[in-house]
Amino acid sequence: METLTVALADRSYPIHVGRALIERGDLLLPFLSQPKAAIVSNGTVAPLYLRRLAEPLRRAGIEVVEIVLPDGEEFKDWRTLNSIFDVLLERRCERSTTLIALGGGVIGDITGFAAACYQRGMPFIQVPTTLLAQVDSSVGGKTAINHPLGKNMIGAFYQPRLVLADTDTLYTLPERELRAGLAEVIKYGLIRDLPFLEWLEHNLDRLLSREPNALAEAVGRSCRNKAEVVVADEREAGERALLNLGHTFGHAIETGVGYGQWLHGEAIAAGTMMAAELSSQLGWIDRQDLARIECLLQRAGLPVQGPLLSVERYLELMHNDKKVQDGKLRLVLLQEVGRAVLTDAAPLPEVRRAIAERSAHA
Amino acid sequence: METLTVALADRSYPIHVGRALIERGDLLLPFLSQPKAAIVSNGTVAPLYLRRLAEPLRRAGIEVVEIVLPDGEEFKDWRTLNSIFDVLLERRCERSTTLIALGGGVIGDITGFAAACYQRGMPFIQVPTTLLAQVDSSVGGKTAINHPLGKNMIGAFYQPRLVLADTDTLYTLPERELRAGLAEVIKYGLIRDLPFLEWLEHNLDRLLSREPNALAEAVGRSCRNKAEVVVADEREAGERALLNLGHTFGHAIETGVGYGQWLHGEAIAAGTMMAAELSSQLGWIDRQDLARIECLLQRAGLPVQGPLLSVERYLELMHNDKKVQDGKLRLVLLQEVGRAVLTDAAPLPEVRRAIAERSAHA
Repeated sequence: METLTVALADRSYPIHVGRALIERGDLLLPFLSQPKAAIVSNGTVAPLYLRRLAEPLRRAGIEVVEIVLPDGEEFKDWRTLNSIFDVLLERRCERSTTLIALGGGVIGDITGFAAACYQRGMPFIQVPTTLLAQVDSSVGGKTAINHPLGKNMIGAFYQPRLVLADTDTLYTLPERELRAGLAEVIKYGLIRDLPFLEWLEHNLDRLLSREPNALAEAVGRSCRNKAEVVVADEREAGERALLNLGHTFGHAIETGVGYGQWLHGEAIAAGTMMAAELSSQLGWIDRQDLARIECLLQRAGLPVQGPLLSVERYLELMHNDKKVQDGKLRLVLLQEVGRAVLTDAAPLPEVRRAIAERSAHA
Repeated sequence: METLTVALADRSYPIHVGRALIERGDLLLPFLSQPKAAIVSNGTVAPLYLRRLAEPLRRAGIEVVEIVLPDGEEFKDWRTLNSIFDVLLERRCERSTTLIALGGGVIGDITGFAAACYQRGMPFIQVPTTLLAQVDSSVGGKTAINHPLGKNMIGAFYQPRLVLADTDTLYTLPERELRAGLAEVIKYGLIRDLPFLEWLEHNLDRLLSREPNALAEAVGRSCRNKAEVVVADEREAGERALLNLGHTFGHAIETGVGYGQWLHGEAIAAGTMMAAELSSQLGWIDRQDLARIECLLQRAGLPVQGPLLSVERYLELMHNDKKVQDGKLRLVLLQEVGRAVLTDAAPLPEVRRAIAERSAHA
């Protein structure tokens, strides 16, 4: 087991990465403020892991409430959020009861937001079971639900008390979800960690065949990158925005085709190609860099072009992005491979061209 | 104009109390991060004050979005909150757009919570127009919506950038609302400011006849009390809970009879009598103190007994209170007139007796 720390003064917390952690009640117990917890999961993950997480807690005398939500991005909305509150109140959960998210990014985001709001804030723990959640969404305290007009529009910055990333759960992950998670792993290489990008180029096949050491390395190194950025800029006043490479395009894709059609990581892969294309048009990276990025995403089995939406529709959706300021798009682009910047300097005609170049209708 | 400060380091903010402040765009402008703001109000307050608040901003080049909600505690729910998000997104409000709450406690609470959640947090300003909002709910950053099973169950601690309490707005306030606001004013005297309680006993008639100097004194002094408590204990780890005198009983009343039937201040008045009754049963205050409190509330035209609900129903509702810990009720009671304590020491039979003694079915 490897342990990293997200160093945020009195809100610091550990990330444990390793095998067979989900049954380790001993790792969870010190973080419960009272002998009561509620686990939020979904209909896919619960049959696999809920018992294994809950039983050791129950044996230790913890009352465990179970909340099982429908599975999918299309349920990351206020209706589902409300159903969490209904159970928490019916089962008399208190503000010192701990909420535990067991699942992927959707479960982590909605559970974290529920914890942020219930009685104005209750403790919460992340137990991510997808690659995407382990390498990205479970760390850093961004919680949210979607709005019909925009991804993750309603939410809070709210840090967990503990992240428990059991890499054994990745063995039950559908192939498509594993590949989607790789989009966020590759992102760290592109924006700030060139040696990691090179490692990924050499070890992608080991990851795709789920070799334990390769998975542990990819999860650990991604979490280290994420933790460093979050500690430097918790509330996204600056550097943290760079983690959003491909996300302004990607969120437009997810919202545009309807939540749940594209997996988040798939949309991010296509969005990353749009950002790379635009960076190349601006002369920041060259065609060879572009081909290198495309090659890696393709090897990971990820889409390298967006879906059939008009360029105008892309732009309309992108203007609801949280980074928009005074009506101007701000995009994360690549200054070079391994270094990203946030900029509002890309001229709109170039943005249009990049979208057209890298989407299905082109 | 009197200016107080809520001293919370980098989140400190001023409270301006005075006459004709609502048209003072100059007081608001320095707090806007971009030339765009959205004002949230309700169908009762908007016709009276929305234009007067918005016009000076528009003249200064600010784009002002107007959001008018239905009036009443029964609309302080997820559905109404969502309708705020709908407009903010449709009108392309950004995370640096400022949200301005113009109205009473319901508008302030729901608008503050919307600001806390929209794009994970946007700046917000309180312009309270009821006595209750000016003396209590607009200060201190408690924001929330109701859940069918409990008052203010879903919310956030989220401080405003500025509170603008224009006491002239109190001249359009219905009599019943003015009286309801007095319940929270009297509370400060009971829990921590005996000289203020004595002042209220001497000046209640001036307040009821809305004498300007008396109103200014009551609002200013209440805000000073509130600010002191919030600065000492922003997140309610201790002293801040004392502001909840009568609230565990009062919230049970509001939830039990249906939101919007009793005004919040009315429920707090009856709840305060239950808390006082219980304090007297415990031998902490005597019958004379009890009569003194009852007399003041009655002079203010406030109810001194709760509605017809069974004692069991009261207790059931009270157990959903945010102060409940490990299944035990924690109540704010009076050690003496002018000094409150938070305690879980009241035996259940005494709690039952106090409720029975001070509710309509008794």
